[in-house]
Amino acid sequence: MKILFSFLPKEEQRLSLINRFPQVDFIFHKDLNENELKTASVFVTYGEDLKPSHIEGAKKLKWVMVASAGLEKMPLQEIAQRNILLTNVRGIHKTPMAESILAHILSIKKSLPLIAENQKKAEWSKRVPSSELYGSTALIIGPGAIGGEVGRLLQAFGVHTIGCNRSGKTASYMDEMVSFKSLKEVLPKADIVISILPSTEETRGLLTYEHFKSMKESAIFMNYGRGDLLKEQDLKQALEDNCIAYAVLDVFAKEPLESDHPFWSMPNVIISPHISSHSSQYVVRALEIFSRNLTSYLNEESNFENVIDVSRGY
Amino acid sequence: MKILFSFLPKEEQRLSLINRFPQVDFIFHKDLNENELKTASVFVTYGEDLKPSHIEGAKKLKWVMVASAGLEKMPLQEIAQRNILLTNVRGIHKTPMAESILAHILSIKKSLPLIAENQKKAEWSKRVPSSELYGSTALIIGPGAIGGEVGRLLQAFGVHTIGCNRSGKTASYMDEMVSFKSLKEVLPKADIVISILPSTEETRGLLTYEHFKSMKESAIFMNYGRGDLLKEQDLKQALEDNCIAYAVLDVFAKEPLESDHPFWSMPNVIISPHISSHSSQYVVRALEIFSRNLTSYLNEESNFENVIDVSRGY
Repeated sequence: MKILFSFLPKEEQRLSLINRFPQVDFIFHKDLNENELKTASVFVTYGEDLKPSHIEGAKKLKWVMVASAGLEKMPLQEIAQRNILLTNVRGIHKTPMAESILAHILSIKKSLPLIAENQKKAEWSKRVPSSELYGSTALIIGPGAIGGEVGRLLQAFGVHTIGCNRSGKTASYMDEMVSFKSLKEVLPKADIVISILPSTEETRGLLTYEHFKSMKESAIFMNYGRGDLLKEQDLKQALEDNCIAYAVLDVFAKEPLESDHPFWSMPNVIISPHISSHSSQYVVRALEIFSRNLTSYLNEESNFENVIDVSRGY
Repeated sequence: MKILFSFLPKEEQRLSLINRFPQVDFIFHKDLNENELKTASVFVTYGEDLKPSHIEGAKKLKWVMVASAGLEKMPLQEIAQRNILLTNVRGIHKTPMAESILAHILSIKKSLPLIAENQKKAEWSKRVPSSELYGSTALIIGPGAIGGEVGRLLQAFGVHTIGCNRSGKTASYMDEMVSFKSLKEVLPKADIVISILPSTEETRGLLTYEHFKSMKESAIFMNYGRGDLLKEQDLKQALEDNCIAYAVLDVFAKEPLESDHPFWSMPNVIISPHISSHSSQYVVRALEIFSRNLTSYLNEESNFENVIDVSRGY
């Protein structure tokens, strides 16, 4: 059985897989090797290289493991038609992303950029606005694995958490839950609004200028899901109109963000160039999930972690 | 009965006290009014204005309430001799200080200053070192109310906490405890070393160059206690020798830090000009503690909060 990678784990990680699964023929390439794919049973990818034509030629392909959370660039229709198992690494992002979200929230609340500016001028200034996270309210739109971890940490800081998803069904570490329909009603309550929504038909364009207008003027809006949640022109206008105080953006309509994009120089925008999920532990954790799933696969079991419902796209 | 303040709470806060305690004659001044002090029974101060000569003249003084945590500038000997009750607001600093400490730790771990620099250059760079707080080890020297709150939050982030105090007796939210004597043995284990020690005979000069040398090269050292914990020359040398990666300093030997002090421009020093305890909720919380203690005082009870053992100085 052949397993093809389109990225190169570190040597010790490759050796560890080879030793642990001697019955498997591992082929590691730094990009997609089309020839090898034709005879591979399993394909491990970051999810941006697979085209519909590849699926057509990969007659033996039974499982695609995406070492990422976003699946927008995957040929989902072709995968569904062939009934190929699709799994991702949902959940391994939760620790680095939640830490990144908390870092930005606390940095803003404690005025760290102003403190750094004063230091550059050797200026001992105690006039630094510093508000507390304790006692505030956060709205988490899309409280899955990552949102739950954010909610857990925010609750530790004494923050009231409101979750918002399609159905309004309960989610972990949320003090309250509402559905997308009630979004506008809860926006005025939130000091921090965090979206961690994937890109689906229901989420694209979900937030409009009117939504930002209904937020607190002191609100911090954070987009850690996908850039197409909103029209960037709407957010820009809302920031210029001071509808909200800050936007922290990890995702954008077009990435990389073009160098002349107005967001770069707006004083109330913080650009985290889609790095919030980065971690020195990333590949280690991805391969742990992969190894557990591979064990199930080899044992012909069906208890796979992070199986994607291809029709929903997440 | 006369209660003298040497700072001015907001008007609504003053009115609230007057309404709540109609039997008390409140005198509010923006600084120490020596004449009024002579006939005051209670004196409420930030703790930097009271001199030994004042105590001598204040014949009716029975209670000094310090709306701060540090007592170095208080005439402790004269207060002890007269057997005057001394209380402070220990504990109200814990929320803003713990949030400030977590903000700086996460900012460094997630490279927020580098992300901000790249933004200024409109540079979409994913080459940002980003380590995880999860799984690291923190040593908290002086785990009292503030240190415990820091420990609680760090544990929520999956950090192993080691507390260090004089006796090695257990403290809240510490996974391990050691005494001052074992300090050098645990320093090499810690990714983050946080001192929140008060200034006492035992803590002055506690950390030397040798201590910094025994820390990890990647360690973050944070001083949120008092500046006289170390000789600044020792810390400067240790930073120049890359014994540790960062120092985050909220306190200094001499405050304000002089504008030509080398710390201002050192790339691995972050200067938080003794503002970590600042909070919009500060006076509100101080007056809550004061009101509870005043109720006890008027009822001639003795269950005061935050009574200072004048002989120990904390």
